[in-house]
Amino acid sequence: MEKFEITILGCGAALPTPRRLSSAQVVNIRQKLFMLDCAEGTQMALRRSRLSFSHLQAIFLTHLHGDHTFGLIGLLSTFALLGRIQDLHIYGPQDLLRIFQPQIDYFCVDSPYKIILHEIDTHTPQTIYEDRSLTVTTLPLSHRVPCCGYLFQEKPTLRHIRRDCIEFYHIPIAQINNIKAGMDWKTDDGTIIPNDHLTTPPAPIRSYAYCTDTSYRPQLTSLLQGVTCLYHEATFAHEHLLLAQKTHHSTATQAAQIAKDSGAGKLILGHFSSRYKSEDILLHEAQALFPNTILAEDGLTITL
Amino acid sequence: MEKFEITILGCGAALPTPRRLSSAQVVNIRQKLFMLDCAEGTQMALRRSRLSFSHLQAIFLTHLHGDHTFGLIGLLSTFALLGRIQDLHIYGPQDLLRIFQPQIDYFCVDSPYKIILHEIDTHTPQTIYEDRSLTVTTLPLSHRVPCCGYLFQEKPTLRHIRRDCIEFYHIPIAQINNIKAGMDWKTDDGTIIPNDHLTTPPAPIRSYAYCTDTSYRPQLTSLLQGVTCLYHEATFAHEHLLLAQKTHHSTATQAAQIAKDSGAGKLILGHFSSRYKSEDILLHEAQALFPNTILAEDGLTITL
Repeated sequence: MEKFEITILGCGAALPTPRRLSSAQVVNIRQKLFMLDCAEGTQMALRRSRLSFSHLQAIFLTHLHGDHTFGLIGLLSTFALLGRIQDLHIYGPQDLLRIFQPQIDYFCVDSPYKIILHEIDTHTPQTIYEDRSLTVTTLPLSHRVPCCGYLFQEKPTLRHIRRDCIEFYHIPIAQINNIKAGMDWKTDDGTIIPNDHLTTPPAPIRSYAYCTDTSYRPQLTSLLQGVTCLYHEATFAHEHLLLAQKTHHSTATQAAQIAKDSGAGKLILGHFSSRYKSEDILLHEAQALFPNTILAEDGLTITL
Repeated sequence: MEKFEITILGCGAALPTPRRLSSAQVVNIRQKLFMLDCAEGTQMALRRSRLSFSHLQAIFLTHLHGDHTFGLIGLLSTFALLGRIQDLHIYGPQDLLRIFQPQIDYFCVDSPYKIILHEIDTHTPQTIYEDRSLTVTTLPLSHRVPCCGYLFQEKPTLRHIRRDCIEFYHIPIAQINNIKAGMDWKTDDGTIIPNDHLTTPPAPIRSYAYCTDTSYRPQLTSLLQGVTCLYHEATFAHEHLLLAQKTHHSTATQAAQIAKDSGAGKLILGHFSSRYKSEDILLHEAQALFPNTILAEDGLTITL
């Protein structure tokens, strides 16, 4: 299968520590890299991860709090120093231009590549990126400031044609794509060979959803149905539910509820408050509702 | 002696790496902390250093390049989250307000402490900070943008009075400070006891100069005469002199020449280009001219 990997660069909440950065991660789809959030220290973590700087296509910011954005200007500046020439697109909520354009104009004045900022409406889901194999759609979230998650979905691929059938039925090359697309085959003597005899199903469509920061938002689940892997913030344990509600964050139980109601394949918990000595309390709480849960960890790569 | 220590948080040039941050350091004078430059990742390095966040009095920025400033907003934001209430003064060249005030207004909107930005004229030396025991004076430097170094100088202290003399000559407490300040003592029978019999010399005045980024600037030496310890950038080895001139940086040889002509006690080289696998080439080059040279290193503390 084609590559579809998530690398966590940072999964802490607001206070970065030497052990854990604030939010940043990279989605690697067929060697195209997409960054999600960009906390202070992201460029150093990206270097440690050995992911290629030059394969980065775009950066998606969930919201304009410092623990999701303070590494952006340093990363952009380093790309300029490294001589990047490929355009870089950055997506984020309102105020993205007002806050970051002046910094880019000042600190990246000699940049050899173009930085293009896109402000997005975080209230309604919309597809903001698309290429041959992928779409990226926004996921409205509920936080103290405009905020959205992002859903990465592979596009449907064609069925796989069986080589032995091509030879056996003398199928001409010109017809192969039609058959991959689902057409049956009629032999010279008029026999119809049904498509499912000629082909095997395509690879299943994989998807990844990144949901942070947000209070519990049940209406998310309709957008996440059948998602392969869900990263959902779990800043607090459920014993701190009132604090979670007050600060517009989620508990581990709530994250697991979203995963369960979405029929997700896997749940990654992240955005951990620094109050917990061990996040096992969050893990066990979520697993009680949704067993296939893991904890995010700086440097961890998850293959879908 | 009272504490006078320098802790290097970062000493790399423009490209931070997992091994070495860009420029940042802390001067610790009698448990008052002063920060010099604030590259990305400074708050994490400060936490690693175990220096107290709350003892930080002021931040001095040499110039507004990213590798000296990108950690500032994250540090300020973390102080706010930690509930700092003490005012924080930040000094830097022109454009400090234009570039950083909007970020502070946006990201530190709920800050419980006041952040006061001071733009300084980098062209003429001036004392910009003073307390009971210390002055901080700017040192004009030559870089591509307005830039200055900083000279930390202890104030002269009084001579130490000899306890045995106080008793022997029955010197009243009210006269002690006069004698510490240099006055002789007249006994009841009219004998003059010279001051140097009653006192010992004060602790020597210590000073620290932080000079980065700059091309070779011989006129610096008149401001640095007798400096106890000099940190001078040595981005390049002397074989890359043309590159140093072109980029307005110094070579290790030039840094050593400044130290020698200033009669410095000690030289710390820093702001290393990432092109050198080992900085020993810079160290040996400088030591040939000025033997008491060391290399800066992230996490290193130097006691004056």
